[in-house]
Amino acid sequence: MNQYLSDHVHLSDDGTAVIILDQTQLPCRTEYRTLRTAREMFDAIQQLQVRGAPAIGICAAYDLYVLAQQISAHTTQEFLSLLRQQATFLASSRPTAINLSAALNRMLDTAATQTCIRDMLSALYRECIAIHEEDIAMCRAISEYGLTLIKDGDGILTHCNAGPLATSRYGTALGPLFLGKERGLNFHVFSDETRPLLQGARLTCYELHRAGIDVTLICDNMASLVMKNGWIQVCFVGCDRVAANGDTANKIGTSGIAILAKHYGIPFYVLGPTSTIDLSCKTGDDIPIEQRDANEIKQKFYAEPMAPPEINCYNPAFDVTDHSLISGIVTEYGICRAPYTESLRTAMQQKHAALSGKGRNSL
Amino acid sequence: MNQYLSDHVHLSDDGTAVIILDQTQLPCRTEYRTLRTAREMFDAIQQLQVRGAPAIGICAAYDLYVLAQQISAHTTQEFLSLLRQQATFLASSRPTAINLSAALNRMLDTAATQTCIRDMLSALYRECIAIHEEDIAMCRAISEYGLTLIKDGDGILTHCNAGPLATSRYGTALGPLFLGKERGLNFHVFSDETRPLLQGARLTCYELHRAGIDVTLICDNMASLVMKNGWIQVCFVGCDRVAANGDTANKIGTSGIAILAKHYGIPFYVLGPTSTIDLSCKTGDDIPIEQRDANEIKQKFYAEPMAPPEINCYNPAFDVTDHSLISGIVTEYGICRAPYTESLRTAMQQKHAALSGKGRNSL
Repeated sequence: MNQYLSDHVHLSDDGTAVIILDQTQLPCRTEYRTLRTAREMFDAIQQLQVRGAPAIGICAAYDLYVLAQQISAHTTQEFLSLLRQQATFLASSRPTAINLSAALNRMLDTAATQTCIRDMLSALYRECIAIHEEDIAMCRAISEYGLTLIKDGDGILTHCNAGPLATSRYGTALGPLFLGKERGLNFHVFSDETRPLLQGARLTCYELHRAGIDVTLICDNMASLVMKNGWIQVCFVGCDRVAANGDTANKIGTSGIAILAKHYGIPFYVLGPTSTIDLSCKTGDDIPIEQRDANEIKQKFYAEPMAPPEINCYNPAFDVTDHSLISGIVTEYGICRAPYTESLRTAMQQKHAALSGKGRNSL
Repeated sequence: MNQYLSDHVHLSDDGTAVIILDQTQLPCRTEYRTLRTAREMFDAIQQLQVRGAPAIGICAAYDLYVLAQQISAHTTQEFLSLLRQQATFLASSRPTAINLSAALNRMLDTAATQTCIRDMLSALYRECIAIHEEDIAMCRAISEYGLTLIKDGDGILTHCNAGPLATSRYGTALGPLFLGKERGLNFHVFSDETRPLLQGARLTCYELHRAGIDVTLICDNMASLVMKNGWIQVCFVGCDRVAANGDTANKIGTSGIAILAKHYGIPFYVLGPTSTIDLSCKTGDDIPIEQRDANEIKQKFYAEPMAPPEINCYNPAFDVTDHSLISGIVTEYGICRAPYTESLRTAMQQKHAALSGKGRNSL
């Protein structure tokens, strides 16, 4: 693995499998999984072996290419129909992240433009590679824009993990920190541990420490005191879906951080690619929130259960941060500011213009 | 144990040891510890085998009585000097909770009123029993006042544990729920798990479920969404120290809950005995905040470490909630409202009047 862990999702050399770093095993073990069947791919996403909206999109695109090669069909129609079935199955693994279905739809659209199965397979191969490469360029652009929001010596609070492991190369919310570090700037990061799955403790601390960035781990409920102490100049978080009005779904707890930041007068930025913007959702109320198993709270990771077994749990994986709490949404096309209904539409228009004008690999 | 676990701290039958329910073993194991030496007593408080400000006060009073019997002294002066040394050592086990030093000082004062060692021992015995009995009456009074703030069917958010295990009998923040349950009222409680030591998951859920009160466990970072969902009508929390202006130290994360409650327009009440009010602290800035070991965040309870071992942690045990965020402070002498500088002083005057007028056992 290189410094940025950018190969944590990739095709096998012969292209017949997807290889992923199993993030559920970090930070104790660095284990890779080889995914060949739709069930293995579904489970890898559903169990968060691969997680983070952009990384899920990249993985799903590779997944569909691998599965496409396994299809035996007599006609292009039959091929496309079977491909669509596989895509639908993969898309059902996690409902909140828009990147998952977006990447799969993009793959399906690509295949549909071709007239024979062999060309469809070639096009699918090119498309999944393109999705990955675009993500690297996207992260780089977001990191550049994000870096304009902070200065040497700043304290930055982040929640969950929106670094290289959630994307490719720089990451989104953590991207400006990696980029700044390359340029000799030093930041002090406070990483929420992010219950119940501890992505902050297990992944963000791991990534930042590995890159030599100063990081302090806190429990989620310590953010208020850390802000009150004056140690935080800005909050940087990722996003899983952004509605047309700027309401943003991200890891559970993000909305609480945003409310605290507003209380203490600290800027709160969402960093994410335009692929997470979903203009078909008018507001955050339209974003489905995934509910997960109670044992993630009561038992997972622990040596023994930490609550009586018969206790009910509420375990939403995400919450929605109201747009009024967000100082800006940093995309690969610049920093969107309120009113978001306009600025997000403009970013999407810039994206479509760039894609139609220069081909998909350019931003 | 009875329904309220009110015997979780008590003297042994022969009075030569303190017996405590080891709360660090809940909810998996119900184990009692017998404390005979000052070191065992110090460790029991420091390691949170007994915790919760009132329970610590009761335990420390029993501790000092047991240690007093072990003193071999020729003069009352020597006896008092050795007793003071033991009290100072016990008081150093946890700096934030005022009840600890208050109970110990009360015991020392009691001993000093007597003229021979035998009478001192008798007075110390009566005093530690009185401290325990007063706590039971105090919890009952707080529960009655707190119950006026909620109605049948309400959703109540609580943080950490301020129930019977933190006090005796009803508890403080949870007291109105137990009392209401006795009277046929039903509430739905959301219990923050309360990282890093999980008092909410391990103790609050255990206590409430045992009493047949409907409880749902959430991670601390889910409180914002639960409030946004409209499921919370009021927040009830305990306190470890209240400054003269109403600023309140309580378990880490409490200030965040208060800020969220204000944002969502939900009343936020602190429930605690007047023994936690410290008029010598003008504001919360004067309250010392205990820092605890990093491994409580990275490793404790887990089957394996959940962060790379070299990662720094910040692990404050408490934070201070600004008085402006508090709807009321519920004491055994009534509900104090803003301006707290006046209402808290009035409550303390009522207390002193009650104590001097009727003797210490009356409230």
